Amino acid sequence: MSVAQSNVITRHLRGQRQTRRFTDEPVPKDVITDILEVARWTGSWKNDQPWHFVVVTDAETRKALAEVGPHAAFLEGAPCVVVVVLDGENPRGEPFDEGRVSERIMLAASAHGLGAGTGWFAPGDGEAKAREILGIPEGKVVRQAIGIGRPQPGRQSSGGGRKPLDEIVSWESWSAS
Amino acid sequence: MSVAQSNVITRHLRGQRQTRRFTDEPVPKDVITDILEVARWTGSWKNDQPWHFVVVTDAETRKALAEVGPHAAFLEGAPCVVVVVLDGENPRGEPFDEGRVSERIMLAASAHGLGAGTGWFAPGDGEAKAREILGIPEGKVVRQAIGIGRPQPGRQSSGGGRKPLDEIVSWESWSAS
Repeated sequence: MSVAQSNVITRHLRGQRQTRRFTDEPVPKDVITDILEVARWTGSWKNDQPWHFVVVTDAETRKALAEVGPHAAFLEGAPCVVVVVLDGENPRGEPFDEGRVSERIMLAASAHGLGAGTGWFAPGDGEAKAREILGIPEGKVVRQAIGIGRPQPGRQSSGGGRKPLDEIVSWESWSAS
Repeated sequence: MSVAQSNVITRHLRGQRQTRRFTDEPVPKDVITDILEVARWTGSWKNDQPWHFVVVTDAETRKALAEVGPHAAFLEGAPCVVVVVLDGENPRGEPFDEGRVSERIMLAASAHGLGAGTGWFAPGDGEAKAREILGIPEGKVVRQAIGIGRPQPGRQSSGGGRKPLDEIVSWESWSAS
């Protein structure tokens, strides 16, 4: 890989931010499929691929999902919602793989010039309600969905800044922080 | 973003595979720092940034980490090991954020032409042992480390294939699978 490409990629990775306000412009189906193709190739514990994705573009379903809890509310305004469903067979490992695949989905969305953000169905019975709305069988785990769409101009989250590197990195041992 | 750049990025994302066999060539410190800079900007629940990274290049420490459990064994041969330490304050959310940041670290490593793979310290008391080796305080959570280095020629994992898209995607509801 050339240095120029390497820079394009690390700049892309560094620049990823959550978007939770979108225009109404639909996400073309071939773009959704390309994003899911990136998701499909994500690595997982023992290559279990413990996930299933329910793509929701229907406005009524999005509204219903948005109403299950405060952290999901922005999904109503996301033209494309990818609900991440976990097999529920490995509670210790699946949330890690869920994070991996969700990160890839968001990175792939922004590679297409789109914004993306995670919407959580908790607290309360939000997760059970989301499962019910989508007809997902009991036993499967539904914690969050990723809203995808064209960002509203000027409404992209700044991401809130980050801790400096020397605060979060130690070399060779913890005490060398 | 241009279509050409978009393609470079989604191709990079799709092509990411685990690497667990490396040459002895050290990873330059500025490359490690660039990878950690990508990690630093990862999003997290409420922007908690619930992570700390212990970078291990010392051969004896890598050997000790490799001995704590079977899934960590390959870390001995990884010239650079990034141990991911979680705050341990949000057991439900942190593994998701751990997956996000670990995925970014692996993607950033391969943007630099390097391979990367996750090594888990469980089962048994592997996690406690890893914490002890690195002097990490009780209460912090240490589940895995990412080994990084130049892949041994011809030894990169094929990744084992993936389920087809129509098996893992439904449109609008589960029953429409």
